[in-house]
Amino acid sequence: MSKTRLEAFSDGVMAVAITLLVLNLHVTPSAHASLALQLAARWPSFAAFGVSFLVVGVIWINHHTVLGTVRQVDRLLLFYNLLLLAFVVSVPFATSTLAGYLANGKATDLHLAVLLYGGTMTAMAISYTLLFARATSSLASASQRWPPSRRAAVARFGVGVVVYPAVALLGLLSAPLMLLVYAGLSLYYMFNQTGTQETDLD
Amino acid sequence: MSKTRLEAFSDGVMAVAITLLVLNLHVTPSAHASLALQLAARWPSFAAFGVSFLVVGVIWINHHTVLGTVRQVDRLLLFYNLLLLAFVVSVPFATSTLAGYLANGKATDLHLAVLLYGGTMTAMAISYTLLFARATSSLASASQRWPPSRRAAVARFGVGVVVYPAVALLGLLSAPLMLLVYAGLSLYYMFNQTGTQETDLD
Amino acid sequence: MSKTRLEAFSDGVMAVAITLLVLNLHVTPSAHASLALQLAARWPSFAAFGVSFLVVGVIWINHHTVLGTVRQVDRLLLFYNLLLLAFVVSVPFATSTLAGYLANGKATDLHLAVLLYGGTMTAMAISYTLLFARATSSLASASQRWPPSRRAAVARFGVGVVVYPAVALLGLLSAPLMLLVYAGLSLYYMFNQTGTQETDLD
Amino acid sequence: MSKTRLEAFSDGVMAVAITLLVLNLHVTPSAHASLALQLAARWPSFAAFGVSFLVVGVIWINHHTVLGTVRQVDRLLLFYNLLLLAFVVSVPFATSTLAGYLANGKATDLHLAVLLYGGTMTAMAISYTLLFARATSSLASASQRWPPSRRAAVARFGVGVVVYPAVALLGLLSAPLMLLVYAGLSLYYMFNQTGTQETDLD
Repeated sequence: MSKTRLEAFSDGVMAVAITLLVLNLHVTPSAHASLALQLAARWPSFAAFGVSFLVVGVIWINHHTVLGTVRQVDRLLLFYNLLLLAFVVSVPFATSTLAGYLANGKATDLHLAVLLYGGTMTAMAISYTLLFARATSSLASASQRWPPSRRAAVARFGVGVVVYPAVALLGLLSAPLMLLVYAGLSLYYMFNQTGTQETDLD
Repeated sequence: MSKTRLEAFSDGVMAVAITLLVLNLHVTPSAHASLALQLAARWPSFAAFGVSFLVVGVIWINHHTVLGTVRQVDRLLLFYNLLLLAFVVSVPFATSTLAGYLANGKATDLHLAVLLYGGTMTAMAISYTLLFARATSSLASASQRWPPSRRAAVARFGVGVVVYPAVALLGLLSAPLMLLVYAGLSLYYMFNQTGTQETDLD
Repeated sequence: MSKTRLEAFSDGVMAVAITLLVLNLHVTPSAHASLALQLAARWPSFAAFGVSFLVVGVIWINHHTVLGTVRQVDRLLLFYNLLLLAFVVSVPFATSTLAGYLANGKATDLHLAVLLYGGTMTAMAISYTLLFARATSSLASASQRWPPSRRAAVARFGVGVVVYPAVALLGLLSAPLMLLVYAGLSLYYMFNQTGTQETDLD
Repeated sequence: MSKTRLEAFSDGVMAVAITLLVLNLHVTPSAHASLALQLAARWPSFAAFGVSFLVVGVIWINHHTVLGTVRQVDRLLLFYNLLLLAFVVSVPFATSTLAGYLANGKATDLHLAVLLYGGTMTAMAISYTLLFARATSSLASASQRWPPSRRAAVARFGVGVVVYPAVALLGLLSAPLMLLVYAGLSLYYMFNQTGTQETDLD
């Protein structure tokens, strides 16, 4: 019961955050710029929308995989979950900022926007790893399902804690490349994550 | 359990997307234009709101019919579902763009807005067909319930993949007519879709 | 299961719609108008926010009471539910329009805004009555729980179909009075509606 | 069942409200102010976002603890719940108002914004206490689980009814200090609240 509501609230927050991303997409009829020109000029918004949608969507998928194995919810797990959600909720802000400065901004501003976006990704990776470690540790004592692969799984997420900020640094050279790599990382974590039987179904 | 959260997240995203449509409706007290004039000038917003609400509402209904028959959720199903949701989330953007250029825009801009709207509808039809095929295929091996009518049902959705872009082309002649046809298609898919016993209740 | 998702989606839409009401509340730091002056000038926004929040909240409560008695969901029920949700989603628009013209608008504009608000309330009452009649009729054949009081309950909602537009006409004389009466009606329907044992607990 | 939907609706409203907080965060590329300057000038928005996110998140956690012990939902409980949600939904407005006047506003305006924010916190504390008292009283007759500690728990929340407005008065001296104390109170209520076995897991 407790877990059901944790999932329902998390699903709700992630569903709202992922949908608010669309608020960054808008064009206004104008005598000076055709729709085609406006859409072309706003390509960073569409690219960032796609990548952020994928990132949050995959976080949701993995969130449900992790919580699917939890038997008892404690306050620390709730706290880590709230931390993760706080950064998920920040994604629309980081996304619109990056898109705005990618469309028209000075290099120094764009660099800061890149670090803001990459920092949000990194913060999500860190809080997700904390959540994952807590979820599987409380589970370790209660079941025999995770322990064999837990060390490997935690390590795999731990790698994310190093890789995500590294990708942000890559973004200082090329922001579009950063977006591509974050999208690729999400696809990797989507199809190749936990080693549970769910992945065997692909 | 896994399926419950897939449904909860999808319900959440679709509920938010369908409600965000209303953000496109707004009037501002003005000394120059009466409320009646403003409402009249904004008829495309109301028409597009109604049609898009119906389209997303019916996608939700059929989504729940399809998932109701799924027994096991795999990563590919999750991916197709995320793809469908990405286009559902884009509907408020496509809707407000179409409404904006329908109210005041040049013909070439309106044509592009029509294609954007029709393209979003088509992308939803394609990703829904992918989701449907995956859902019923993973089911086919697990139960004997769908196989008899599965080919017919997949074909019926496959038709949508052809019809939806055709309606968009029709929209190049008349955008309001396109909206009417999309509304009609949604009503058709609402009341006459799967051949399961649910429809027998009407 | 089917009913669970109907409830989840409806809960989601109503939760988003009720929360979007707050987007109509905002003040901007200004050198010309103190915060106190701005809050005072915006009293219609706060009043309309409170009333609309109560109205949607009570619709949610009664929605869950009605659906709580449904055993089988059919397509017509889904359609009436979608109709109800379409008008629920329109409430933030009707609310912000009324508040805007109540704060500063000509009498004719305000009258139209009043009719828009009252019309939305009436449309919700009608679609709720349709939903209620359908929900209890499909139930009538399946159980013996509702029939005794069903006629009375449908009549009580049928009265709403007459009362709600009448209150809108009252609003042509005084919009604040209309808001007060709608709030009172919601409180009445909240505490004195269905005659089921739930109300006995008060 | 009834309780399930109460939780689902409350989760939805709180999830939307907590996510709407992010709408207050936005920067616009500008030739006059670098991104770094804009982020620095907007520190109150980020601070208020963090505190309000924590406050609403902890209210959600405690809400689910309280409702987890309820066996029967009555109309008065629904009313108190609706009251709590009305103030939760007001948090984004109170937050953006406080942040706006903290960034640039006269002292008198800021004082009023502080009282608005503290008043919202106080109203949440009062309605939460009402909800808690009602939830545990209806439970008291049905089970033996809460009675022993109920008096203490109600008292602990009752203290909040005094402390929350006191912190608002503190905010008249220093608004940032007020935010810090509200964050601290939330952390206290998060990790040390109900005395149920859930807290034992920390």
